[in-house]
Amino acid sequence: MSLHGAGPERTEQIAAAVEAFVRKVVIPYENDPRRDHHGAPLDELVMEMRDKARAAGVLTPHILPDGGHLTQQETAIVLQKSGLSPLGPLAVNTMAPDEGNMYLLGKVGSPELKQRFLTPMVEGRVRSAFFMTEPALEGGAGSDPSMMQTTCRLDGNHWVINGRKAFITGAEGARVGIVMAKAADGPAAGGACMFLVDLPDPAIRIDHVPNTIDSSMPGGHATVTIENLRVPADQMLGEAGEGFKYAQVRLSPARLSHCMRWHGSCQRAHEIAADYANRRMAFGKHLIDHEGVGFMLAENLIDLKQAELMIQWCASVLDSGSLGTVESSITKVAVSEALMRIADRCVQVMGGTGVTDTTIVEQVFREVRAFRIYDGPTEVHKWSLAKKIRRDWKAAQSA
Amino acid sequence: MSLHGAGPERTEQIAAAVEAFVRKVVIPYENDPRRDHHGAPLDELVMEMRDKARAAGVLTPHILPDGGHLTQQETAIVLQKSGLSPLGPLAVNTMAPDEGNMYLLGKVGSPELKQRFLTPMVEGRVRSAFFMTEPALEGGAGSDPSMMQTTCRLDGNHWVINGRKAFITGAEGARVGIVMAKAADGPAAGGACMFLVDLPDPAIRIDHVPNTIDSSMPGGHATVTIENLRVPADQMLGEAGEGFKYAQVRLSPARLSHCMRWHGSCQRAHEIAADYANRRMAFGKHLIDHEGVGFMLAENLIDLKQAELMIQWCASVLDSGSLGTVESSITKVAVSEALMRIADRCVQVMGGTGVTDTTIVEQVFREVRAFRIYDGPTEVHKWSLAKKIRRDWKAAQSA
Amino acid sequence: MSLHGAGPERTEQIAAAVEAFVRKVVIPYENDPRRDHHGAPLDELVMEMRDKARAAGVLTPHILPDGGHLTQQETAIVLQKSGLSPLGPLAVNTMAPDEGNMYLLGKVGSPELKQRFLTPMVEGRVRSAFFMTEPALEGGAGSDPSMMQTTCRLDGNHWVINGRKAFITGAEGARVGIVMAKAADGPAAGGACMFLVDLPDPAIRIDHVPNTIDSSMPGGHATVTIENLRVPADQMLGEAGEGFKYAQVRLSPARLSHCMRWHGSCQRAHEIAADYANRRMAFGKHLIDHEGVGFMLAENLIDLKQAELMIQWCASVLDSGSLGTVESSITKVAVSEALMRIADRCVQVMGGTGVTDTTIVEQVFREVRAFRIYDGPTEVHKWSLAKKIRRDWKAAQSA
Amino acid sequence: MSLHGAGPERTEQIAAAVEAFVRKVVIPYENDPRRDHHGAPLDELVMEMRDKARAAGVLTPHILPDGGHLTQQETAIVLQKSGLSPLGPLAVNTMAPDEGNMYLLGKVGSPELKQRFLTPMVEGRVRSAFFMTEPALEGGAGSDPSMMQTTCRLDGNHWVINGRKAFITGAEGARVGIVMAKAADGPAAGGACMFLVDLPDPAIRIDHVPNTIDSSMPGGHATVTIENLRVPADQMLGEAGEGFKYAQVRLSPARLSHCMRWHGSCQRAHEIAADYANRRMAFGKHLIDHEGVGFMLAENLIDLKQAELMIQWCASVLDSGSLGTVESSITKVAVSEALMRIADRCVQVMGGTGVTDTTIVEQVFREVRAFRIYDGPTEVHKWSLAKKIRRDWKAAQSA
Repeated sequence: MSLHGAGPERTEQIAAAVEAFVRKVVIPYENDPRRDHHGAPLDELVMEMRDKARAAGVLTPHILPDGGHLTQQETAIVLQKSGLSPLGPLAVNTMAPDEGNMYLLGKVGSPELKQRFLTPMVEGRVRSAFFMTEPALEGGAGSDPSMMQTTCRLDGNHWVINGRKAFITGAEGARVGIVMAKAADGPAAGGACMFLVDLPDPAIRIDHVPNTIDSSMPGGHATVTIENLRVPADQMLGEAGEGFKYAQVRLSPARLSHCMRWHGSCQRAHEIAADYANRRMAFGKHLIDHEGVGFMLAENLIDLKQAELMIQWCASVLDSGSLGTVESSITKVAVSEALMRIADRCVQVMGGTGVTDTTIVEQVFREVRAFRIYDGPTEVHKWSLAKKIRRDWKAAQSA
Repeated sequence: MSLHGAGPERTEQIAAAVEAFVRKVVIPYENDPRRDHHGAPLDELVMEMRDKARAAGVLTPHILPDGGHLTQQETAIVLQKSGLSPLGPLAVNTMAPDEGNMYLLGKVGSPELKQRFLTPMVEGRVRSAFFMTEPALEGGAGSDPSMMQTTCRLDGNHWVINGRKAFITGAEGARVGIVMAKAADGPAAGGACMFLVDLPDPAIRIDHVPNTIDSSMPGGHATVTIENLRVPADQMLGEAGEGFKYAQVRLSPARLSHCMRWHGSCQRAHEIAADYANRRMAFGKHLIDHEGVGFMLAENLIDLKQAELMIQWCASVLDSGSLGTVESSITKVAVSEALMRIADRCVQVMGGTGVTDTTIVEQVFREVRAFRIYDGPTEVHKWSLAKKIRRDWKAAQSA
Repeated sequence: MSLHGAGPERTEQIAAAVEAFVRKVVIPYENDPRRDHHGAPLDELVMEMRDKARAAGVLTPHILPDGGHLTQQETAIVLQKSGLSPLGPLAVNTMAPDEGNMYLLGKVGSPELKQRFLTPMVEGRVRSAFFMTEPALEGGAGSDPSMMQTTCRLDGNHWVINGRKAFITGAEGARVGIVMAKAADGPAAGGACMFLVDLPDPAIRIDHVPNTIDSSMPGGHATVTIENLRVPADQMLGEAGEGFKYAQVRLSPARLSHCMRWHGSCQRAHEIAADYANRRMAFGKHLIDHEGVGFMLAENLIDLKQAELMIQWCASVLDSGSLGTVESSITKVAVSEALMRIADRCVQVMGGTGVTDTTIVEQVFREVRAFRIYDGPTEVHKWSLAKKIRRDWKAAQSA
Repeated sequence: MSLHGAGPERTEQIAAAVEAFVRKVVIPYENDPRRDHHGAPLDELVMEMRDKARAAGVLTPHILPDGGHLTQQETAIVLQKSGLSPLGPLAVNTMAPDEGNMYLLGKVGSPELKQRFLTPMVEGRVRSAFFMTEPALEGGAGSDPSMMQTTCRLDGNHWVINGRKAFITGAEGARVGIVMAKAADGPAAGGACMFLVDLPDPAIRIDHVPNTIDSSMPGGHATVTIENLRVPADQMLGEAGEGFKYAQVRLSPARLSHCMRWHGSCQRAHEIAADYANRRMAFGKHLIDHEGVGFMLAENLIDLKQAELMIQWCASVLDSGSLGTVESSITKVAVSEALMRIADRCVQVMGGTGVTDTTIVEQVFREVRAFRIYDGPTEVHKWSLAKKIRRDWKAAQSA
């Protein structure tokens, strides 16, 4: 998969088609009762929407028919439109964790692995899961990947994997898994490995799917036990011991695509709140004519624009070939915090209606709250930015 | 019902008993699966907890055996303890809207109405609902009560009530209702009236119970149509046309008791987050030894203390006999915003765990978000405070 | 004056030259004691620095030798560098109000007016003032220009101007004035006019120069009485009655150039604070290794980037030919508030040292505080953005 | 000096007298031009105001004629009134650092030391300075007192002191000094000692008085070199090696009295801003009728009340005999941050006028900015609160 882009005009066409599809076809599904008990749409509903997306030519819109991938700047425009409904990314196959998994496979996978695992994902026929994070109070890897406890050991022509994983989004119902583990011995000992596996597999036991504040992701966020999972050696993704490097390859774009999608959702939440404020009266005038409300909507305009600019900037850095670790930290913090403010204001503007599921505003608020933690909570990013300031200062001193 | 108080030692005993009951008996119910589809506990569970509270002598702890009511300052201490679990107020009968309804009936009700409607409420045998607010986009009364559209008309010895109500907490399953309407004609025309009614009543139709961001209140927040509800004239609460005045009587204490209960919940959320931060490691040390986390918990201490002081101050104003309209506006804004900051920090400190229902932190976050809107959103209170500043300035000029 | 730009490479050269000049030549002047009693550098010092800037080829760097003007995007890069010292814009002639006045004259002035008034300004030989705002408590024009009370009346071949002006930056010591007044009668009655005048003029009396929180602008911000000022008709700038339109032409770029300069100052304040945090120890480690400090500096990185992106975006809108009223409102709010946060954090990071004049951090904090009010306080911009949301909604409804 | 209190009625009388004096006598001095070049009033002006205060019976109002000291709760009420003008505490002798120095001497001083040093301070005839903090970039004691580098050595019947001190408020012009140093040898080696000294003394050289953002304290905040200062052994305050303990005695009340005084100043700034907003028109109505302004003033009401409650609570803790270290940290952070928000809003409400010295609002903003750093910046207090949470958790675990 190359990142060759589509050009501005073509991108605009794709984005417009996605927006039209989401607004006309997907939004009516927002009231569809087919949900699992965590509030996420059932796969049946997802596949129904995807059939329509396929027919409309907007399925997996960021991957071109020739296998090429839109640039990150182009992707930003398209994914933002897909996010105009919380169901949009599911409908057009731009959602997490699949979008990031496809990206990683496209970058690192061998032709065989791509054919077997990536193709059905790009075709929107299966969902996937990324098995990295581990249970917090068991001392496992969360924001600090070096704490990884899951191990893999080479046994003949297979790797044997053991460990516990937590917050594995979409594990329930996924057909493809990317499993990360630390090599317990051998030449790559202490290094991380990634494996592609077919799911479900009896050696990967879903212990528990906690209820979470968000409710857009089918399968929720599972806690999982991996017990003697045997994976053929040729299902390793890339090289042994390079897993942390691959995680980095996936990291920044995945972080950024979260920003894109939720930016779209907050854009829509703002539209809903602005519409409400233009209709609802209180104390003798329309809500929007109360500065207390109008100013909140004005602040939304500012925050939406800021977030959009940050996304485009970070995308341009990634497009230049950089890993963008610092830039995606900056962007993730700025965007997630801005979107939280927007979502919170939308709820507040709509008063009682804002805390009901009459509109998606209430859901967007919950989703964005979770987003401030997913992909590294704000504090972890600030921590690494502070380290960078220290590093840069030392380098300047010795120069 | 008089507000004669219990004295500091007695109050401390009551509070300690409530705290012990909530911590030992109620908290284990937090994982009980008996919930309605909005997430609130089923009445069956509520009644089971109340039986235990009755046995432990902590049921309706703010109303004394002789019918007297704790002072607001005493109530604050007791209700704060009841709030240490979101189930606590339900278990010991200090929850909204019943607590406010009992208070109002105790203040304004005739002996006959008290005997018939108040007694079973104080005994924790029935739930009640307060029918005041109306659908926003139909132009009904929300934060601005003067917009009330529900009407009542005297027809012989009965009043006939018609209208639509929204956000009627606990209407589903309630046995007692207090219904508010504007007199359409007669001597009280344009004034508001309140009526006590037995529920359910076929003339009060529950159209819809929206899913809401909060999930602690049995029966949720219903939208209701009242069609030709006939209420015997002697079921009017107080005098015709005095309804807005009675709403004021209920208003400040009800607002304040929300503050008390959710203060307790945030106190507990803070305990949970602090415990987590003292156990969980990241980047080589306990979370709490990271200033980025430790400072958030320190800010919680500050906000918890500030909120407590505001509650006690406002309670003392109410105890002095004032309606406390200004003071309860100040307190409602300060406390709800402080509690939101606390709840948000607790979620953030706990990372992924914070957005799951593994602990109550996630629920408390959602409840407090709603609280910033219930009982008048922040903006409405600021609006009325600004009006007061204008009024005071004009008065000073003409003096 | 055309806005033809210099191309990316040329712009980079100009910016680099300005940065080098400010860092090497201007910064040492920061401790120069030659200040007026408001804290601003005396003109003697300004002219000394300008001589050096002229020699270094960096005087008025945003206006090209052929009279052309850098594009706004190019200007942003150059002016940001000039702002690395609060003295920088004075030294290289990019400061307010002259920069905006030059821009306006370049856009609207006749060749004769340009020759007479603009040339010496571009050569950095004189300072100018813009007489628009009026005393607040006398009901004059502040954020709301329609309240303008200063009048002009045609009397033969002269206009006679009367009124009071306030916050006239740099009036004391200026040699060129642009005076704005409302036509009291004649065909342009009620419309605004602008006039170019030589200063000083006995008919323009400086009543008072208040001490202000900022101290970078020579001449401070004067309150002025204009009494029977007679201006030859050919010194009118543009057409009678078009004054508000010209004010708009000046408005957005002037607003934006403030953002650029103070962005540079905050960049430098951040450098100073980061350096301090990397040297100073407390509680056994460097300040920056305390997350409480490191996170503040990380937040600075985020805010600096956000502000920079907003400035570039708004500049690109202006470069496209738009008046950019909405965009410059968005940008002014976002940038000024971000810079305030940055300046505040820099002070805080440096502790006691931060509130002294040992470094420019203390001054930058004060300057940025004023900036949140100059060119329209945050609230006025939110107000106009809310109006726009209302307008857009209505337009969409009728479409 | 005992802390026996005056009773509520007496306290109210004292507070009323102080308020009347400040409003009628002191406020007119706010425009007096007698200032030193740091902006603080000259001692000549201070002594003139004190003569009037003495005549009005409001000099040193928190110390009773019999030498007794008001309780902290009573002190709070009185000092808040003294702060209604930035000049008020200077006029009635309740300002820092004298107020804290008097408190410490009253608590720890021997009768002889009190007679010689305390009496003229209580009589308002001299100013004093507290020599504790040291230059930051020389590694000296700032927020972390254990870093103290100034030493004292017993030499016969004298102590010989050497070191550097920074931010020594009021050193220039002070007649009494309390000097803190670490014992270099002897039985108290490593412990801190405090000495009372007459000023000026040639062995205490004022190197520099930086310009600072605040301007209310005569003498500014000096950097000082102490070279072979010889102090007779009987001028030691209390016992050798107990200096850190005495610093603690002074710490919480001094911290709190800052809160009190600046609360008064912010109360006044709010009065000024509210008055302005009630007079000034913009866009067709009074500023206060714009919610954007009215809400800011409403938020001031909330913050003023919160700050007042925190002060009273912390004072009650100190009155109970506790050192109040934790409580004064909580209060210092909460109050200083609340006052900053208030001062900032007052500036903003007043627009251009707010950044001039037309009113005291501009000065109060600058003073409160400094206050967020004096007596321990916000971050140091949060740091110690986080430590406390950790300590408490460990204690609970081992219990």
